[in-house]
Amino acid sequence: MKLEKVRALGAHIITYDRLRESREEIGVRIAGEQGRALVKPFDDPFVIAGQGTIGLEIAEDISPDVVLAPGSGGGLVCGTAIGVQARHPHAQVYAVEPEGHDDIARSLAADSIQANPPGVRSICDALLVERMGDITFEIARTRLAGALAVSDEDVRAAMRFAFANLKVVLEPSGAAALAGLLSGALDVRGRTVAVVASGGNVDAAMFARAIG
Amino acid sequence: MKLEKVRALGAHIITYDRLRESREEIGVRIAGEQGRALVKPFDDPFVIAGQGTIGLEIAEDISPDVVLAPGSGGGLVCGTAIGVQARHPHAQVYAVEPEGHDDIARSLAADSIQANPPGVRSICDALLVERMGDITFEIARTRLAGALAVSDEDVRAAMRFAFANLKVVLEPSGAAALAGLLSGALDVRGRTVAVVASGGNVDAAMFARAIG
Repeated sequence: MKLEKVRALGAHIITYDRLRESREEIGVRIAGEQGRALVKPFDDPFVIAGQGTIGLEIAEDISPDVVLAPGSGGGLVCGTAIGVQARHPHAQVYAVEPEGHDDIARSLAADSIQANPPGVRSICDALLVERMGDITFEIARTRLAGALAVSDEDVRAAMRFAFANLKVVLEPSGAAALAGLLSGALDVRGRTVAVVASGGNVDAAMFARAIG
Repeated sequence: MKLEKVRALGAHIITYDRLRESREEIGVRIAGEQGRALVKPFDDPFVIAGQGTIGLEIAEDISPDVVLAPGSGGGLVCGTAIGVQARHPHAQVYAVEPEGHDDIARSLAADSIQANPPGVRSICDALLVERMGDITFEIARTRLAGALAVSDEDVRAAMRFAFANLKVVLEPSGAAALAGLLSGALDVRGRTVAVVASGGNVDAAMFARAIG
């Protein structure tokens, strides 16, 4: 579905083998050969600033004690943290990662960037980067309260919840933070919580399975 | 799904046979026996005024040439018309009805309230009243530009469109106006159009069939 939609916008798509090739290297090579600018998906100050507008929007509406956002490269969750904490410094911001792909949690624990093992599968196809970025790691280590991991079943339950109660279509990666909240891993009783639910590009067949 | 959700809110639900009983009569009888106030679902000035806030919200954001809203009892579409036209008197407001249940179109054509034949089925379960209200008819005849009819297949296509492009869950009745737009029955090229998409209480199985 994502390939189709991007192609419909006029993009030329180059696919690669996630297990045997590096998309970062492919991007650098093409940019060099063709004199193009490389826009990294998360490890770029302007991309992080763009994600940060989500935090500003949250901060305008509420003063959250806890904020949950999907975590992978870290752009979304770190941008959100900067945005929210600019106005509400007490807000505790957590990244929510796919189980087995918990490099943010391990990087925070080790205080150095840790990679994910190759080949771990998850239905959260937008949260499967090899490791977080250098810039996002520096933000994460000073701004994040921690990271939670969610299973595919947690994510499907969150998609089902959003369908039945919020009337919103979430793709698995977009439902990760909601899954983190609903999993009960954090005790948020009596606290004001914001959840970033971002991304709804999911195939009809997968969505039907999740809500069924 | 609707029964479950209303029951969860603490309601006592009395079911009836749509083909052999009148819910209006049942409501009047219970209100009389138990000294309760009867809140009619559409033929009530305050209910229409409440629906009208949708029109005010549209009018704040855009100046529409055309507005489409689901039509049945007429509260939603008539309230929306009053709200929009208070600021944008030129806006043409259309009701969108289920095929075979097009009493608003026939009532406008005859300039008198026409009933629907009993037993007509549609997946738009919230748009199957026997006839529009006395108050809503008086508003409709002076404010509506017309009424369109949509088939079950039009409605499923609109649900699919909303899923894939808007990331919104619509129940069939809530997708009727969008179905009216997508059906192409109105030529809206170059015009500013507002569509009321209201209602997302749909069973997972029906939703899966619609988007599949």
